[in-house]
Amino acid sequence: MSTTRTSTPRSVQTAARLRCIACGATPDSAAQDFRCIACGDLLELFFPGWTLDQQDGAEPRHHTDATALKALWLERRTSREELDQSGVWRFRELLPYIPNIEEHAITLREGNTPLYHLARCARAIGVENLRAKHQGMNPTASFKDTGMTFAASSAHQGGFKWVACASTGNTSASMAAYAARGNMHSLVLIPDGKISWGKLSQALDYGALTCQLRTDFDGCVSILNELVRQKPVYLLNSVNPYRIEGQKTAAIELMEQLGWEPPDHIIVPGGNLGNSSAIGKALVEMRELKLISRLPKLSIIQAEGANPFYRCVRELGGKKLEPKTLKPMTADTMATAIRIGNPASWKKALRVLQATGGEVEQVSEIEIAIAKAEIGADGIGCEPASAVTLAGLKKLRRSGFVKSGESVVLILTGHQLKDPDFTIQFHRGELFSEMPEAETAEAKRLQRAPVVLDANLGAVIAALDSADRDS
Amino acid sequence: MSTTRTSTPRSVQTAARLRCIACGATPDSAAQDFRCIACGDLLELFFPGWTLDQQDGAEPRHHTDATALKALWLERRTSREELDQSGVWRFRELLPYIPNIEEHAITLREGNTPLYHLARCARAIGVENLRAKHQGMNPTASFKDTGMTFAASSAHQGGFKWVACASTGNTSASMAAYAARGNMHSLVLIPDGKISWGKLSQALDYGALTCQLRTDFDGCVSILNELVRQKPVYLLNSVNPYRIEGQKTAAIELMEQLGWEPPDHIIVPGGNLGNSSAIGKALVEMRELKLISRLPKLSIIQAEGANPFYRCVRELGGKKLEPKTLKPMTADTMATAIRIGNPASWKKALRVLQATGGEVEQVSEIEIAIAKAEIGADGIGCEPASAVTLAGLKKLRRSGFVKSGESVVLILTGHQLKDPDFTIQFHRGELFSEMPEAETAEAKRLQRAPVVLDANLGAVIAALDSADRDS
Repeated sequence: MSTTRTSTPRSVQTAARLRCIACGATPDSAAQDFRCIACGDLLELFFPGWTLDQQDGAEPRHHTDATALKALWLERRTSREELDQSGVWRFRELLPYIPNIEEHAITLREGNTPLYHLARCARAIGVENLRAKHQGMNPTASFKDTGMTFAASSAHQGGFKWVACASTGNTSASMAAYAARGNMHSLVLIPDGKISWGKLSQALDYGALTCQLRTDFDGCVSILNELVRQKPVYLLNSVNPYRIEGQKTAAIELMEQLGWEPPDHIIVPGGNLGNSSAIGKALVEMRELKLISRLPKLSIIQAEGANPFYRCVRELGGKKLEPKTLKPMTADTMATAIRIGNPASWKKALRVLQATGGEVEQVSEIEIAIAKAEIGADGIGCEPASAVTLAGLKKLRRSGFVKSGESVVLILTGHQLKDPDFTIQFHRGELFSEMPEAETAEAKRLQRAPVVLDANLGAVIAALDSADRDS
Repeated sequence: MSTTRTSTPRSVQTAARLRCIACGATPDSAAQDFRCIACGDLLELFFPGWTLDQQDGAEPRHHTDATALKALWLERRTSREELDQSGVWRFRELLPYIPNIEEHAITLREGNTPLYHLARCARAIGVENLRAKHQGMNPTASFKDTGMTFAASSAHQGGFKWVACASTGNTSASMAAYAARGNMHSLVLIPDGKISWGKLSQALDYGALTCQLRTDFDGCVSILNELVRQKPVYLLNSVNPYRIEGQKTAAIELMEQLGWEPPDHIIVPGGNLGNSSAIGKALVEMRELKLISRLPKLSIIQAEGANPFYRCVRELGGKKLEPKTLKPMTADTMATAIRIGNPASWKKALRVLQATGGEVEQVSEIEIAIAKAEIGADGIGCEPASAVTLAGLKKLRRSGFVKSGESVVLILTGHQLKDPDFTIQFHRGELFSEMPEAETAEAKRLQRAPVVLDANLGAVIAALDSADRDS
């Protein structure tokens, strides 16, 4: 796509290998459904070169490279090359090597997302240092872009003409954009019946082929898997391990923004759990490479109505986490981006909790709505699923897991404009038919339904005075 | 707000002065409605220090400063300071000086927007080098943020507790965000009656006070002007000249992205004409300061249903442009962001056309819809108003004003998610009840209505094959 010249330290950009997260098989290449051919579980990427040196017993090679890498990544911020301007490809030394990437990279200059202080929220909750890394500021307005640029480029390098997923939400929007950008076709499979047109609008705009199948969501996934096994169609569902690799860069960029001083806590919304897995993987790898000296605790927050991972971890107890016990459920939450009853990446996420010592929490629909309005009042918009992080932080603060002097970073995953209806209904008081008393007061304090006034100056001034008194 | 240390070459950051664009009066400070107290016309900012040196007859001081400025701005891209990370404040040497800016800057890390090649659109139109500067990638998803960060900071420096505008669209969203960020209250005045809730959702989310007045839009503006004259409320409508200053940075950033080599053409949507004025002002100032060596032609495109500026210029003929003859109209276009019948900044925009030798064009609703889908098929989403630029370019190419070997940059002003309904209706074929034959064929080629299929692999493969044949 571009004529970028890469000035990469070759010693670092090690070829990655595939490995099954369950049976440990290391196939040379992935089947088109990205499932382990031995046991059917998920695959992940690992970098043999990185650990090899450490196993020699010598000082790990990357100890010295860390400083050089940081300098290289910083220098790229002044580059006018397309790859360097991407907040994903700028960190390509920590991503699997793709041959001839200059020809195959499909980028929309994703990543490069802001890190915002949340001053009012911090005061209200009682933490000194609260920030939000806003992945909703990506080109298609969700965090999916960081993984999609990498996986779509991988599809392009593999010579695919078609890419596909089953999704009506953020994934299909992102997939369709990168496919169009890379001159590939994209296919979106969704169940026939009640379509959320707003969610589908982006995929349509980017020219995706959308098929409504006369079946349910699982039926769509099943046909999609058949399709990729029989036809040269590249699967971009969340089981694709290359998406996880691209999503790692959110954590790398965050550490750079923090001057490579990790916060005490990172808090992530938990839906399909691919994002938690990616951020956790990046943290562990960065520590391995001595880019950071310690791991933040990564905690995962689910909605009460879509909490299979929360129940799995809580039922198992803190120490005995082992993959085999997730019970899928029928999910129901207004935070549609995390309305997932059978999260694909739960075993990877479990490993992240173990590695970092993070916690899981669940929050109610009302808690989500209030948290979203509080983030908004700090001047930052996000979609409902992103707001579970703040709602969860409140609980983790109350339980003492997060202490007042500790630093916290929330990962916001989607833009405010992904779900304007939720915002409107909240502020008009239409979201909940009944609420507990304490939360009613809290919601009323935040709600901003428009007031209808006569067209005279006195009426407007009275409204201003009233708002002044309330604040 | 921040603890930023500014390492500014003081010689450059000249205090700006206010000047009336009609009578030339240079008041020391602006009235709260930002109208000239002598003649009632708009004010603008100018920088006496810049021209002073040139009037001395010596080599202009900024000839040598240009190189230093470019180096300074580039270096700031590696900075972790809040002001340096903003794509507006990074260029603060070309903005009016605000005392103690470290305390008063309100920033969401706006600007920093991508410049995309539009490869397919370029081939279809027959221009070699076509790019889009996407101002819809700003935090609140429109170009308004670049002006708002500057004007809101100015309000904060002035000690205001309230800011206000009359708007239900991009302006109110942006204003509300920056007000919240700066601990100020924001007031949105809108006419009672048919409310576009989707457009208002962002302002509600950021906690704005919205008053629906029992009058029309002009009635709201009139009460707003009364309000700011009587109460300490800071006006953030487009007449505010500080907004224009912030919006200049889109052009500065663009030139930096192009290695300070101006394109032959820049094409901007024309609504209230503040954006055209700002970009044109920046170009002229950059040439004055020898940051660029020549001016691109800046052309302005309006929707046929909201074309007062187009008619004004065309009726006057190319050379005799002089301000006095704009006839306001009742505007009607689906491109709501430019649905303006009486553009505030038309005299400023006229001056830009004269200075740069640009053209004006108008485009139909169907042309807008087709252009938006074409931009989408290139992997870039935008709101309808942004797509007038591509539709206009086609006409300018056909008329010969734009030549095939010339380089063109389109300014996209709003994100795709600002108006999902338009996208959906286009792809479902619901936007137009009837269309001319040629345009029907063009639209059908781009439309992607979902297809309903039985849940079996054969049906899906047939749909893929059919799409392959069509492409």
